[in-house]
Amino acid sequence: MNSAIETMLKHRSIRKYKDTPLSEEEIGTLVKAAQSASTSSNIQAYSIIGIKNPETKQKLAELAGGQSYVAHNGHFFVFCADLYRHQVVGEMEGKDVTESLESTEKFMVAVIDAALAAQNTAVAAESMGLGICYIGGLRNNLPEVSKVLNTPDRVIPLFGLTVGHPDQDPEVKPRLPYGHMYFEEAYNPERTSFEAGLHEYNETVSSYYKERTGGKRADTWTGQMAEMLSRPQRMYMKEFVQGKGFDRQ
Amino acid sequence: MNSAIETMLKHRSIRKYKDTPLSEEEIGTLVKAAQSASTSSNIQAYSIIGIKNPETKQKLAELAGGQSYVAHNGHFFVFCADLYRHQVVGEMEGKDVTESLESTEKFMVAVIDAALAAQNTAVAAESMGLGICYIGGLRNNLPEVSKVLNTPDRVIPLFGLTVGHPDQDPEVKPRLPYGHMYFEEAYNPERTSFEAGLHEYNETVSSYYKERTGGKRADTWTGQMAEMLSRPQRMYMKEFVQGKGFDRQ
Repeated sequence: MNSAIETMLKHRSIRKYKDTPLSEEEIGTLVKAAQSASTSSNIQAYSIIGIKNPETKQKLAELAGGQSYVAHNGHFFVFCADLYRHQVVGEMEGKDVTESLESTEKFMVAVIDAALAAQNTAVAAESMGLGICYIGGLRNNLPEVSKVLNTPDRVIPLFGLTVGHPDQDPEVKPRLPYGHMYFEEAYNPERTSFEAGLHEYNETVSSYYKERTGGKRADTWTGQMAEMLSRPQRMYMKEFVQGKGFDRQ
Repeated sequence: MNSAIETMLKHRSIRKYKDTPLSEEEIGTLVKAAQSASTSSNIQAYSIIGIKNPETKQKLAELAGGQSYVAHNGHFFVFCADLYRHQVVGEMEGKDVTESLESTEKFMVAVIDAALAAQNTAVAAESMGLGICYIGGLRNNLPEVSKVLNTPDRVIPLFGLTVGHPDQDPEVKPRLPYGHMYFEEAYNPERTSFEAGLHEYNETVSSYYKERTGGKRADTWTGQMAEMLSRPQRMYMKEFVQGKGFDRQ
């Protein structure tokens, strides 16, 4: 197994960083790594915003739910789905591109493009010995986040990514059983084996928590997920996304 | 610069593979790399389907637009947004999770989760000396692709990923200028500088094509994009996605 893969398999989110800011060179490398990711038909339907200003970080931390590591890290990236660029392109070239830009298809393309780029940044950072954490909490309040970041219509900040020198060393979290996530030849939704995979994972997750809390916590994954999903979150999203010009038709 | 980052910066899609199939061990490593990617609140809202059967590959190649490399490669992965698992979880735990699963927010979460996992597979494969190509063409006909792959409601095949031993050595494609993709502190939609970035990229792209075609092609990026986006594609997507139970509210 090579070092790139070893790095990936050791991934865990870092939620406490030393105060050292990333150098310009490090930031440049991480952005170039992002740009090297695949992109649908070279459409490059995303943008990256990098935040150094402590006040802006603090504001975004509050909007995301108050996590201290959004304010304190080596650098804070925000990855955006971006079709504003393509609207400008349409105007420059005198072509009507509105129907395309407003399609669910292109919404998916932009979200996928941004995520592929972000994961390159994440893996590149970890390969440099840095830690990372994705900040989906930015989606708690995208109208305000968009104001702070000055994003125009046809741009949606999707998530943040904290990067920095780790000041903690958490353990790797166990994932769903291999055979439950990976199907050979076709999906198998058959309930008995499907639920067996979930029960197996519940045992793994329970042991993980028991060991780490001296027996105080023994959460199951299905319990955690059902609890989380029974409380719908961010239900303003459809209206917001469509208001920004995405996913309309 | 370390070897993981060097690998990323050298990325280019491979569209011709040797006939050598990936070993079970290689497939296992690539799936485990995928599973190690970050996932929103550990929701793991995706699944991976691996295809070896030449007839299935051939069928998917035809549905995707006839690319020979979808049929001929070392292995073919399909990455799916998956909330079927979470519907089963809701039923197992006796909780109503429908509103969550049907939200635009969770549609985004599932698409992002799948893309992060896929990009780990892509980077892991390239770090092993293999080549990759994303196959967005699967979205040409998702109703048929879903039948071939037996995916139930709440599962959407998002894209394929061909992996294999390269039988070609194409060049790296130039990306948008760094300062056009990466903003410091806030987005800057101001038109003069924004268009300057696009003109700069047009020159880069034109030179790239001129050099490679002995002057026969001199496409600009804005020209290519405006042409592509003026012909809306896959406009059935909204109805399909909602029909599968995603992005409804």
